[in-house]
Amino acid sequence: MAQQKAISPTRLEDYPQWYQQVIKAAELAEPSPVRGCMIIRPWGYALWEKIQSVLDARFKATGHSNVYFPLLIPLEYLQKEAEHIKGFAKECAVVTHHRLEADAEGKLQPAGELEDPYIIRPTSETVFGIQYAKWIKSYRDLPLKLNQWANVMRWEMRTRLFLRTSEFLWQEGHTAHATAEEAQEETLQMLDVYQDVIENTLAIPTIPGEKTARERFPGAINTYTLEAMMQDCKALQSATSHFLGQNFAKSFNIQFTDQNEQLQHVWTTSWGLSTRIIGGLIMTHSDDDGLVLPPKIAPIHAVILPIIRKDQDAGLIIEYCQKLKEALGQQLFNQEPIRVEIDSRDLNGGEKYWHHVKRGVPLRIEIGLREVNGDSLAISRRDQLGQKITQSRQQFIQELPHILQEIQSGLYERALNYQKVHSHHFTNLNEFKDFFANDQANGFAYVYSSDDESIEHLLKEYKISARCIPLATSQETGSCIFTGKQNAKKIIYAKAY
Amino acid sequence: MAQQKAISPTRLEDYPQWYQQVIKAAELAEPSPVRGCMIIRPWGYALWEKIQSVLDARFKATGHSNVYFPLLIPLEYLQKEAEHIKGFAKECAVVTHHRLEADAEGKLQPAGELEDPYIIRPTSETVFGIQYAKWIKSYRDLPLKLNQWANVMRWEMRTRLFLRTSEFLWQEGHTAHATAEEAQEETLQMLDVYQDVIENTLAIPTIPGEKTARERFPGAINTYTLEAMMQDCKALQSATSHFLGQNFAKSFNIQFTDQNEQLQHVWTTSWGLSTRIIGGLIMTHSDDDGLVLPPKIAPIHAVILPIIRKDQDAGLIIEYCQKLKEALGQQLFNQEPIRVEIDSRDLNGGEKYWHHVKRGVPLRIEIGLREVNGDSLAISRRDQLGQKITQSRQQFIQELPHILQEIQSGLYERALNYQKVHSHHFTNLNEFKDFFANDQANGFAYVYSSDDESIEHLLKEYKISARCIPLATSQETGSCIFTGKQNAKKIIYAKAY
Repeated sequence: MAQQKAISPTRLEDYPQWYQQVIKAAELAEPSPVRGCMIIRPWGYALWEKIQSVLDARFKATGHSNVYFPLLIPLEYLQKEAEHIKGFAKECAVVTHHRLEADAEGKLQPAGELEDPYIIRPTSETVFGIQYAKWIKSYRDLPLKLNQWANVMRWEMRTRLFLRTSEFLWQEGHTAHATAEEAQEETLQMLDVYQDVIENTLAIPTIPGEKTARERFPGAINTYTLEAMMQDCKALQSATSHFLGQNFAKSFNIQFTDQNEQLQHVWTTSWGLSTRIIGGLIMTHSDDDGLVLPPKIAPIHAVILPIIRKDQDAGLIIEYCQKLKEALGQQLFNQEPIRVEIDSRDLNGGEKYWHHVKRGVPLRIEIGLREVNGDSLAISRRDQLGQKITQSRQQFIQELPHILQEIQSGLYERALNYQKVHSHHFTNLNEFKDFFANDQANGFAYVYSSDDESIEHLLKEYKISARCIPLATSQETGSCIFTGKQNAKKIIYAKAY
Repeated sequence: MAQQKAISPTRLEDYPQWYQQVIKAAELAEPSPVRGCMIIRPWGYALWEKIQSVLDARFKATGHSNVYFPLLIPLEYLQKEAEHIKGFAKECAVVTHHRLEADAEGKLQPAGELEDPYIIRPTSETVFGIQYAKWIKSYRDLPLKLNQWANVMRWEMRTRLFLRTSEFLWQEGHTAHATAEEAQEETLQMLDVYQDVIENTLAIPTIPGEKTARERFPGAINTYTLEAMMQDCKALQSATSHFLGQNFAKSFNIQFTDQNEQLQHVWTTSWGLSTRIIGGLIMTHSDDDGLVLPPKIAPIHAVILPIIRKDQDAGLIIEYCQKLKEALGQQLFNQEPIRVEIDSRDLNGGEKYWHHVKRGVPLRIEIGLREVNGDSLAISRRDQLGQKITQSRQQFIQELPHILQEIQSGLYERALNYQKVHSHHFTNLNEFKDFFANDQANGFAYVYSSDDESIEHLLKEYKISARCIPLATSQETGSCIFTGKQNAKKIIYAKAY
């Protein structure tokens, strides 16, 4: 059992295929017959609900309110911000008709052509902008800090479950401020909120940084990002926060009268995190036996598996399991009652056991007659596969919150260590090229680099991109590894999702 | 102040306009420049969030899981269920292109025409159906009980905030069962869940009933509804639950092997509640001074208004307010901490006072120097406008949960009484006609009636429709008031939204 892995192929054999198989085995999501769109199944959606609830509480605690804006955007809105439209025109779903009619063969055809077509929102800066211009009159109306949870659509050509889908779920925050400083502060505050939730709840280590000019959000002055390293050493942009300056304010004419009765444009920000992060969660922690979930995000913390060998023992074992479930549910982890389920389905033990392994449940507790008689339980941790420990019931109940915390921290530490081991600083261009010279991603390369158009061909050749200027070293400068120019910033390059 | 009403026109003067003005004054929502779509503002969205959280907990407690299905539906899916497509083809947004290109004048035009267009979901029976056929193989896979929270789109020609918008937010439950009985039970169970939440949380009395054949959901065998009466005596369909029989199962080939190894079609249900209910909430309780909110749904239960006449008193008064807020927040109402806010904005007292009246905050607490010195507070209840009561602080803190419950029950009782007063039983056709003879809606008319096509012209003439066959009297029969036919059921007729 220890040799045979539940997921085939393994990570080493074929990482992209392994990723698809982990999702399938855990029943997180599946492709839909609708081009590029996915169906998020209960176990996958439960992860998104947890992420939503943690983030939403943080948004509210930092003074944001939720709203809902229309799905459709008139074409003329998009056209108002030149950079913005360039970024999205190539990949958007266009609504051109408002009913269907059967043709001569009875086949439905679009009918009722619209005079002005709409696109399905790829993001909502434009529709928020139009409204902000209406709502904001005076400095008393500022700051305006709104967020929406919504679906958006970007017509992607190559899609991948969670990581890149034509439709995805996300939240988008949109705020307006009286001063540049305040807007900049908001941008960084939300990056902090994301980092806190991604690191502490999802146990994914990230590197906060600023995007280089050519990697910015269309229309932004600055884009901040959290870059995470997956187990194939590729980078995943986990969330972004944009300082939009007065670009959108000027395009949409969002003005306010300040305390000196002067008319001024506001300063805006936007920031978002999407279902893509679930792809990051899967790729950070999972192994060749399937999904591994940090306890804080796991829909259930522990599953109790009754092992009934003789029918006559069933009553006794089930009763013991139910009492155990109740006792465990009264313990708190992460300020919430511990989530326990009993799986008493009529399946063979091995099938049931692997079902929960593949779904990443942090703890499995087996209860047979021996455990009932010994007032004990047999525990297996998802993060320590192959080890089963028998423990006294009382002791386990007491220790459970501690065990869950240990798993949570352990997963984070392991991922952080992985990121560190696969991060390298280069001052020599040939070493840098060697690092990326094969098809595999070897990690994060830190180099002093100018954000020069002339290096584009080299990045393309090695299929890498500038991930970010890490905030931690954003004041350091050196000589550009590509051009030799002075005063270059330290930039992380990597292959990326 | 008692004479002048905050909302103009009043309900009596112009009910539809009054409705729009209540929404505007409470800043619940507003029309968007996107045809037929609305923008739900923070105070309105907070109501939806509360409804979501109460309903979602009930769905989970009854064994349902949340999922997410694609926004877009291929035309061919719709075509599979003949009745269903008839119901939705005339009002759906059609996506025909997947990018934009600037024309010679620089104007964006749809480009990249799709071979197979999509519609934006008006409801999702079809996409769930396709997937259920894939997921369900054996009786062990049943029941399958899923729900999704989503936006849907129906291209309405005449729209009205919350009540009828082209895009709206809702949840849609879709379940599959092994037997007709079990599916029928599910259908009625979810109707019960809706009724419980609508009556107990929103304080809207409803009449559960079955729709007549011609009012059913397209493709359903039975549609159950909750009919509520608004203050203009019109009916509002508040939520529906459909028993779909094997119609969708046969169209989408959803089959399972039963315990006797026989292949059978499943039995399905679907049920939904939308942001429309917020329109019902507004119209049930609000008055000529604006929104009135039952405490269980109110985003805040009480607002504290510091009344500062001299700057030197400010510190004392604000401190008193903060301690009061803290003490009140430690009390529970409806098993949740009581929600209190201090409004210390720099606005004149009257403006501030009316702000909260119009937004329907159940309790306003005014604190000036006199209250601080008297260890007391001045309370105004939203449901008893014009009365201000001074009470001792300690006593109020203790009584607050009780007061909130009294407001909650009072609003329900008032609405229930209104419904009863405006409900009439008729056995004489002329009296029935007189009841509906003017442009105003006069209420619910209960009559024995056959569901006969021949009465359609009469219903059209009086602009009324069959609302439901109330479950409470569904076994009673009598002679049809229109045709004289025997064995007619008791049906409610009314003008309706």
